[in-house]
Amino acid sequence: MSELFQFGKQVLASQPFSALLGTELEAFEPGKAVLTLAVRDELKQQHGFVHGGVVSYLADNALTYAGGSVLGDSVTSEYKINYLRPALGERLTARATVLSSGQKQAVCQCEVIALNNGEERLVAVAQGTISKVDTRN
Amino acid sequence: MSELFQFGKQVLASQPFSALLGTELEAFEPGKAVLTLAVRDELKQQHGFVHGGVVSYLADNALTYAGGSVLGDSVTSEYKINYLRPALGERLTARATVLSSGQKQAVCQCEVIALNNGEERLVAVAQGTISKVDTRN
Amino acid sequence: MSELFQFGKQVLASQPFSALLGTELEAFEPGKAVLTLAVRDELKQQHGFVHGGVVSYLADNALTYAGGSVLGDSVTSEYKINYLRPALGERLTARATVLSSGQKQAVCQCEVIALNNGEERLVAVAQGTISKVDTRN
Amino acid sequence: MSELFQFGKQVLASQPFSALLGTELEAFEPGKAVLTLAVRDELKQQHGFVHGGVVSYLADNALTYAGGSVLGDSVTSEYKINYLRPALGERLTARATVLSSGQKQAVCQCEVIALNNGEERLVAVAQGTISKVDTRN
Repeated sequence: MSELFQFGKQVLASQPFSALLGTELEAFEPGKAVLTLAVRDELKQQHGFVHGGVVSYLADNALTYAGGSVLGDSVTSEYKINYLRPALGERLTARATVLSSGQKQAVCQCEVIALNNGEERLVAVAQGTISKVDTRN
Repeated sequence: MSELFQFGKQVLASQPFSALLGTELEAFEPGKAVLTLAVRDELKQQHGFVHGGVVSYLADNALTYAGGSVLGDSVTSEYKINYLRPALGERLTARATVLSSGQKQAVCQCEVIALNNGEERLVAVAQGTISKVDTRN
Repeated sequence: MSELFQFGKQVLASQPFSALLGTELEAFEPGKAVLTLAVRDELKQQHGFVHGGVVSYLADNALTYAGGSVLGDSVTSEYKINYLRPALGERLTARATVLSSGQKQAVCQCEVIALNNGEERLVAVAQGTISKVDTRN
Repeated sequence: MSELFQFGKQVLASQPFSALLGTELEAFEPGKAVLTLAVRDELKQQHGFVHGGVVSYLADNALTYAGGSVLGDSVTSEYKINYLRPALGERLTARATVLSSGQKQAVCQCEVIALNNGEERLVAVAQGTISKVDTRN
């Protein structure tokens, strides 16, 4: 297990909201992050699909991780998400990559995939800006 | 209590994820929706702020409600959010309004406010497209 | 005419693309910018409406101006636009305001209005991040 | 030359704004569109880079073309763009692909590349929703 991956797991474990949802870090290397989440009823909306807020949370967090893999301690400044179809199934996976990065910001993209009865479907795509936390302030 | 407001409360109560987070409907009228959420430790990230995913969830849900107030049963198709500052405090409120609507879609904006020691601060702004659920399929 | 307004007019005059399109600065004060454009056939698409690219350009430029009014020399880092209805008429106006600003970035919103036979209609809304040009590099 | 490509060239030729800018269709097939533009001084801003509005226009138009390749006559409903670096060089190329499509809408992504002294650099990425023009109204 790489040092970066171990660091990433520690950060995730220190996020109470990620613990509440049950998010796991599947991969974390320079320029790339994969987060995954087991679907349970508590994470759904009224039609039985995973709530859009859960899909957004996972995309947002994966974007921050991808950016953080090259910037260090980071936050999401902004992102945009398109929901492509209802998120249905037993597991969600968000795969984010860095498209471009400078010293203080990175632009990243993310796709969220739902695993349903062994079949993977793309359920959302996101794009956003990750900013290094300014430790001088 | 208006019929629309009662309907809105029922929808929210039927969203397990909204129940998990503790979201409440504060206002719901044609073209406008206000959702609110008491902050607790479970909803935070590693620096002690409310997790961005919670802020996004609340904005997303408020956008859907605003759109749904004019379209009927609806989902968020896409949205974009800018985080303006860390979400700190005891309560979050998302106020969404409809800017434009047709028969099938509405474009809405939302602001998320954090109440911290009696002071309100704008912590995020969002803009997105809400789509009527097509019941013919 | 304020110094800021004069400075804004000089910047606009020094943008060849803005000269090509015929953009005018209508208002420019701290936290706010208004740009306007006379519609002519060259700016249209195949259905006779103003080309979306022109609407986007005007929104983008107004966002940069609004951000620049508080940051100084600036560029747009990112923005999102929703087109609400076809842009039809003799004049477009983009009104942008600053929602939040720090030392290096500002988050701004913009509405684009079309004037058609004396009637104003909102044709697009945009939201984005403006960044101060780093003159140290 | 395919029928679709010929149709695409006709549409582009019938857009006065695209003619003003000098846009060319390089590729157009189901799910994919490539537009390209020779950079000239008229398309620049005050620092000598291609104006962001030109980059946005090209991305927006390529998104519409990609969506239109599967939907037929279409418009951009909304999109988001991140500028990654100044657009510098002699030619811009926007490559758009369809990520997901239904009967009425498609979600597409686009990258804009600048060719500068023989070197290609990614200068912007965009993501948006394309909607079929409803001919019943």
